[in-house]
Amino acid sequence: MNQLNLSLPDWINSFLNEYPKIIPDPEKQMRFVLALTERNIREETGGPFGSAVFERDSGKLVSVGVNVVVRQNCSAAHAEMMALMLAQKELGHFDLGADGFPGHRLVTSGKMCAMCLGNVCWSGVSEVLSSAEPEDVEKIAGFDEGPTPPDYNAQLERRGIKIVPELLRSEGRAVLQLYVDLGGKVYNARHSQESSLT
Amino acid sequence: MNQLNLSLPDWINSFLNEYPKIIPDPEKQMRFVLALTERNIREETGGPFGSAVFERDSGKLVSVGVNVVVRQNCSAAHAEMMALMLAQKELGHFDLGADGFPGHRLVTSGKMCAMCLGNVCWSGVSEVLSSAEPEDVEKIAGFDEGPTPPDYNAQLERRGIKIVPELLRSEGRAVLQLYVDLGGKVYNARHSQESSLT
Repeated sequence: MNQLNLSLPDWINSFLNEYPKIIPDPEKQMRFVLALTERNIREETGGPFGSAVFERDSGKLVSVGVNVVVRQNCSAAHAEMMALMLAQKELGHFDLGADGFPGHRLVTSGKMCAMCLGNVCWSGVSEVLSSAEPEDVEKIAGFDEGPTPPDYNAQLERRGIKIVPELLRSEGRAVLQLYVDLGGKVYNARHSQESSLT
Repeated sequence: MNQLNLSLPDWINSFLNEYPKIIPDPEKQMRFVLALTERNIREETGGPFGSAVFERDSGKLVSVGVNVVVRQNCSAAHAEMMALMLAQKELGHFDLGADGFPGHRLVTSGKMCAMCLGNVCWSGVSEVLSSAEPEDVEKIAGFDEGPTPPDYNAQLERRGIKIVPELLRSEGRAVLQLYVDLGGKVYNARHSQESSLT
């Protein structure tokens, strides 16, 4: 009753073996994350969201995450949460911005929901790159973004976190559309059960 | 790199053995949660926050959580997150409000931060009881509550989640004050390292 175990899908390791361990270019980082997201859709292992944490200056990959809410029986297992928690495990610290660490960047296929926005503030990352906008996530894929504040970007910036939204947004939208076209499920818990879009 | 393990402190089991498994009265549920929070403070196993999930009608205890951010190297390991994730594990479903389940209530020592508010919306609980208010958490203990929306309660209610704030608020404030009096740490990640209040 007091132990939690969460894991990413088995295909993650073979996916990572296809890519370099260092990806300095921000657009290439986002293409990597969108490919990760597409793989999660095609493997049918979760919702249409992917994320990764990189060292900000070197581009060294620290962790990845995909949405595994349904398979892991965990409403918190969003892509950003998995990537941030795994990065903190990797570094052995709850604060990726602690003294002695290089700066860290979260790269994510869709702008964070309310929960993930909160954890970004607590995680210690100093930068976020996102692709699809909340309206894309809600209109194309039908997922609720939750109780985010009207001054979303400013809330990050006042905590020293730079956000670069809409990076490769059209590609990010295309990945969401792929999920819908393949009949992916929208599992928002408040609907009390899974419902298919198709 | 793809596996996460999070656990509550070892004293949880002996704590639980001191209480009944069914606590129907909401005030008694909150006193249980505040005692759990005080234990986490006195054991020095984490921040001054505790939570529990109960079946709403029967009062059956489903799970508990305490803040274990620093010890578990995980900025997401807030009390509410631990309790919700453990309840979902216990039921084998990401949605505590899914068909066939009784309604569930989250009882928490402090009103949720931005991250935990988001996960409450995704978790499937139908009711939240909270004690200390965000201003208590910020003014007494110095923790940032994060980017919550101005229409906090309405955001829950529009998703079918009833919130009863300020239940035994003075007792909730006293637990926060105890943490400060004992020299507890405020670990908000944006400060880039732990800082003691004393």
